[in-house]
Amino acid sequence: MIVRHSLGEYPIEFCDLEMAVGGLPEDRVIVTDENVSTAWKRLIPVDERTIVLPPGETTKSLTWYAEVVRELARRRCSRKTTLVAIGGGVIGDLAGFCAASYMRGIKYVQIPTTLLAQVDSSVGGKVGVDLPEGKNLVGAFWPPTKVAICAEVLVTLPPRQFANGMAEVWKYGFILDADFVNRLSRKEASISEVLRHCIELKAAVVEADEFERLGIRAKLNFGHTIGHAIEKVLGYEEFLHGEAISIGMVAEAILGERLGVTAPGTTEILRDELESQGLPVEWSGLRDADGLIAAMKLDKKASSGRLAFSLLTRVGECKLIEDVPESDVRSVLSSL
Amino acid sequence: MIVRHSLGEYPIEFCDLEMAVGGLPEDRVIVTDENVSTAWKRLIPVDERTIVLPPGETTKSLTWYAEVVRELARRRCSRKTTLVAIGGGVIGDLAGFCAASYMRGIKYVQIPTTLLAQVDSSVGGKVGVDLPEGKNLVGAFWPPTKVAICAEVLVTLPPRQFANGMAEVWKYGFILDADFVNRLSRKEASISEVLRHCIELKAAVVEADEFERLGIRAKLNFGHTIGHAIEKVLGYEEFLHGEAISIGMVAEAILGERLGVTAPGTTEILRDELESQGLPVEWSGLRDADGLIAAMKLDKKASSGRLAFSLLTRVGECKLIEDVPESDVRSVLSSL
Repeated sequence: MIVRHSLGEYPIEFCDLEMAVGGLPEDRVIVTDENVSTAWKRLIPVDERTIVLPPGETTKSLTWYAEVVRELARRRCSRKTTLVAIGGGVIGDLAGFCAASYMRGIKYVQIPTTLLAQVDSSVGGKVGVDLPEGKNLVGAFWPPTKVAICAEVLVTLPPRQFANGMAEVWKYGFILDADFVNRLSRKEASISEVLRHCIELKAAVVEADEFERLGIRAKLNFGHTIGHAIEKVLGYEEFLHGEAISIGMVAEAILGERLGVTAPGTTEILRDELESQGLPVEWSGLRDADGLIAAMKLDKKASSGRLAFSLLTRVGECKLIEDVPESDVRSVLSSL
Repeated sequence: MIVRHSLGEYPIEFCDLEMAVGGLPEDRVIVTDENVSTAWKRLIPVDERTIVLPPGETTKSLTWYAEVVRELARRRCSRKTTLVAIGGGVIGDLAGFCAASYMRGIKYVQIPTTLLAQVDSSVGGKVGVDLPEGKNLVGAFWPPTKVAICAEVLVTLPPRQFANGMAEVWKYGFILDADFVNRLSRKEASISEVLRHCIELKAAVVEADEFERLGIRAKLNFGHTIGHAIEKVLGYEEFLHGEAISIGMVAEAILGERLGVTAPGTTEILRDELESQGLPVEWSGLRDADGLIAAMKLDKKASSGRLAFSLLTRVGECKLIEDVPESDVRSVLSSL
């Protein structure tokens, strides 16, 4: 599969991890975390060309960004060095931002090791780190030179992490493809098919709107306006990203029905599927609307205090609404 | 004047500072330093839309970068906010990198207040900060949305700072335009003509090779391989950038003559002009070749330990040589 972008294109290869690592260029530095490094130590060499970071969302900070770019400089990496991210979204986003900015941009390869990173963050070139003030507040659009999708890495993934990724899988179905929702619901889609199909959907969206300026890529944010706010008020603890997005999708479906944007009954279908997947669909903290709305206003999607949502119109379709009245959001949240 | 780049184009406007500041959008944050803010307090409002930083090269660090992007977040800046850099190269490069990465990129306007920044760093979209390991080691190619050149700001510039900028002015002449060297030498070019001509030359080069990949933009690095190394071994003290570049140009002209690349006698012309401008043309520390060569190898222009130089062929022409033997560099430096 090939993804085209403003400065060229890159391949997405479906292969095993051994082949992906074996095919890396000589002049490269691998960035990974302790968990991945331990789980795949047979295949990932830990030597002077590997940087192993602590696992967890707190690694996705300017502090660790500074550590990695300084380490690249100390190891005499040049403009010709390729950075290789082997890990989940935290590693991919952090290493990607290092690649985007080290010597004003070097090549990088994404080898995502979680379902979430495979179907979401590894494709599309969005890289960055969090600030204490909010998630992903600094970063770049910096396309990788290659993405390798190794389905085998999913076998070591704990069930909670798997469901975490499935939240984004369901999202693709609900916003873009009703048939896919049916296939997922009837458990007809293999993991390998799920990976390919989600990545195809994502690739088509980012090709159409690489820099998220046309209102196409922003549609992928269904569930994310409220989901990100949940993560923020909880300090990125308690819920995993996909779990917060699952709760966010249900809340935004209710909001959509209330606004008359979403077909009545859609929320029920969505809630049932996410629940069967083992994902949370409600959270008592939603009723503290003030804290959540304040968090939403700092979101990159908001501007001048207006609240923007990608809302379902019906199963398999959605629409960007950039000026949802705060009062509607408040009364929906308070009613949950 | 219009500069075209891969994602669009931007105007370079020649106007006074009052007009430049008056024409800024409402939704904007000005980044400046204490010196500029004091010198131009009548025209630059210091309010909640202005961030005033300490002056000096040490401000161009990841520490201050983090301060500024966090401040933008705290002030609720959105993707629609325009960042405005009013200052020298440090402010322009730092604010530019903040604009390149805040929310994955927002608009920014450059209002350079030194001759050096006007003729060099404000045009071309190179932004970034220094690491302890080297200068400009992280950054981006991020074109401004507008550059305003206000010649009047030069009247408050101390003579040493003026000569500092003139080093880059002479560089443009020596690498690209023998007639311009003659006009400068005969003192026929007004400041206003100098500004326009240098910016035209720079704009043409960056349009031809925006990302410094074709060996065209890299020609602008005449004097910079040795000049940057001088700055690095001195910890960016003692010499201003243009002064280090002046010494570097003379040393690289001698190197070019030795390699048979530069026409004999060119060094003498160059040295005389720079000396008349009040710029340093030699430095006893050059004879410590080891330290300088180690610094050159970490430069972005180097790769795999090879030394790259933009060398004059004759007055008004230059050539990129990417594999200069270390032994030649060493013996030239040791002989100085």
